Amino acid sequence: MAVYTEIRDRELAEYLDRYDIGELHSLKGIAEGVENSNFLLSTDVGNYILTLYEKRVDVEDLPFFLGLMEHLSTKGLSCPRPVPLKSGKSLSTLAGRPSAIISYLDGNSVRRPKPNHCQQVGDALAQMHLAGDGFALKRENALTVHGWRPLFEGSGGRADEISGGLLELVNDELSFLEANWPSNLPKGIIHADLFPDNVFFLKDELSGLIDFYFACNDLLAYDIAICVNAWCFEPDHSFNVTKARAFLEGYSAVRPLTPEEYAALPVLCRGAALRFLLTRLYDWLNVPPGALVTPKDPAEYIAKLRFHRSVDAASEYGLEGSHT
Amino acid sequence: MAVYTEIRDRELAEYLDRYDIGELHSLKGIAEGVENSNFLLSTDVGNYILTLYEKRVDVEDLPFFLGLMEHLSTKGLSCPRPVPLKSGKSLSTLAGRPSAIISYLDGNSVRRPKPNHCQQVGDALAQMHLAGDGFALKRENALTVHGWRPLFEGSGGRADEISGGLLELVNDELSFLEANWPSNLPKGIIHADLFPDNVFFLKDELSGLIDFYFACNDLLAYDIAICVNAWCFEPDHSFNVTKARAFLEGYSAVRPLTPEEYAALPVLCRGAALRFLLTRLYDWLNVPPGALVTPKDPAEYIAKLRFHRSVDAASEYGLEGSHT
Repeated sequence: MAVYTEIRDRELAEYLDRYDIGELHSLKGIAEGVENSNFLLSTDVGNYILTLYEKRVDVEDLPFFLGLMEHLSTKGLSCPRPVPLKSGKSLSTLAGRPSAIISYLDGNSVRRPKPNHCQQVGDALAQMHLAGDGFALKRENALTVHGWRPLFEGSGGRADEISGGLLELVNDELSFLEANWPSNLPKGIIHADLFPDNVFFLKDELSGLIDFYFACNDLLAYDIAICVNAWCFEPDHSFNVTKARAFLEGYSAVRPLTPEEYAALPVLCRGAALRFLLTRLYDWLNVPPGALVTPKDPAEYIAKLRFHRSVDAASEYGLEGSHT
Repeated sequence: MAVYTEIRDRELAEYLDRYDIGELHSLKGIAEGVENSNFLLSTDVGNYILTLYEKRVDVEDLPFFLGLMEHLSTKGLSCPRPVPLKSGKSLSTLAGRPSAIISYLDGNSVRRPKPNHCQQVGDALAQMHLAGDGFALKRENALTVHGWRPLFEGSGGRADEISGGLLELVNDELSFLEANWPSNLPKGIIHADLFPDNVFFLKDELSGLIDFYFACNDLLAYDIAICVNAWCFEPDHSFNVTKARAFLEGYSAVRPLTPEEYAALPVLCRGAALRFLLTRLYDWLNVPPGALVTPKDPAEYIAKLRFHRSVDAASEYGLEGSHT
């Protein structure tokens, strides 16, 4: 949840004059997205999402994010599409922040995904990976293996406050992953944050993917590992192999995994668990006073990391190697 | 801003089955209302507001609030109207809370009201006062003169932490108001919280009033005094007599003030300022840990109270007695 910035009446009117989207009916701050301020904008033409990019987003990345949504929409993926200004651009300024209007996607995220949802997410992720091909802009992933140690150094000294032994666990894991991270797997555009919050369904049919503000160029199979972590565990942190199998089958039916990607799944899943463990740890230890957002508990990802460390072979994720 | 309660997929589906409002398109938590959780509900039929009543609202008051919206809508006031369940009732249960679906009003609140807005709010408040006539249910106002001293006792001991001399100021004021509060003025249904957040405009034309969850039976002119405080001061807390005149002219063109109401305006304005000063003081000193809402600064209402204490006659609010 996040609505950080208030918009004044007059500046909103001037802002909307730059677009061809009809007369304002209403603007309501919505509890979606953690990094930005999001508003539901209704006009006599329809509904839109108006986003103000707050300081956690680097302005220089916005052409990548907005261009990617445009590119993926054009390739037929169901995702928000930037609405052009009369000038043809998609980026503007409102309330002193960079801002954009994007199309409104019907649907709701599911809070308790079932295997059927996981299968559809696998399918959609693979379609996104294929559709990303040919997108001209590049963005490095700051939150992959080389970024984790510096991130941990920002909070590592206090790791044991959260959970006894966490400092040692993370140091072990960083050493292992730095030595064993794969580099020769297929690369492309990844979503990098495809959690249940970011996938909409309408009557149990996937209706679209949202929130591309972590998207970047990286190993496609790392995106798979992020989803295994995000979609295939139960609220008690136990692994649900039925959901993982459904997800991986959904994915590989659209884009079959290479044997190297398949073999690398356990290490990629460990890396993905560590990545979210580290950002949650950092946020947990650095809650700003007066924050409107409750940070997410890092313990969930400690449990997931421990699970993946116990995995001996990719087949434990439920997909046989021969299906890839 | 407030979205406190998460709704599970299955319970939402079961809940909507009790209504005749089409298929779910989306449900988004919105940053509106402080007491309740509010969601924008979109279906193939249209947009609605879904409200979960959190514990600050007394369940026994809900038939009054929902019945009042129904009554006022029927009388032609533009305000949300409860959407009936298939059973004909308007109150239901979702996520363990009492819940209702109400109609969606187009429009936005204005953050910087101009005299033109104030005039329209006066007009609409008077129309609401007339339309409230004949509503069968009653609700006492817990936040009028007899409720202020107990409220202050909940935080008075710490008042000087907020502002030097506040304890003495409030004690003085309580004694004055308890001795001088009018009792023989016209009574009826009042909104009791008609702040700019709760009035919508479309292209500078008032489109409706919302949030009737403080409505009650009390002196009609006390509602006027609440609005003078809420609409007629500048961000630097200075009084804007042009806005007050516009508001009072808008009101009295629809429902002329009695001479007694007019004469009582200064004391009513002092009472209204004290009422918001006291609830803000209480909230400020009692922020729950992890609160998602930043309490409003009581200092604003200290300044407003001091202004009204300096007023000698109702004419200082900009409306001549002969116009009433």
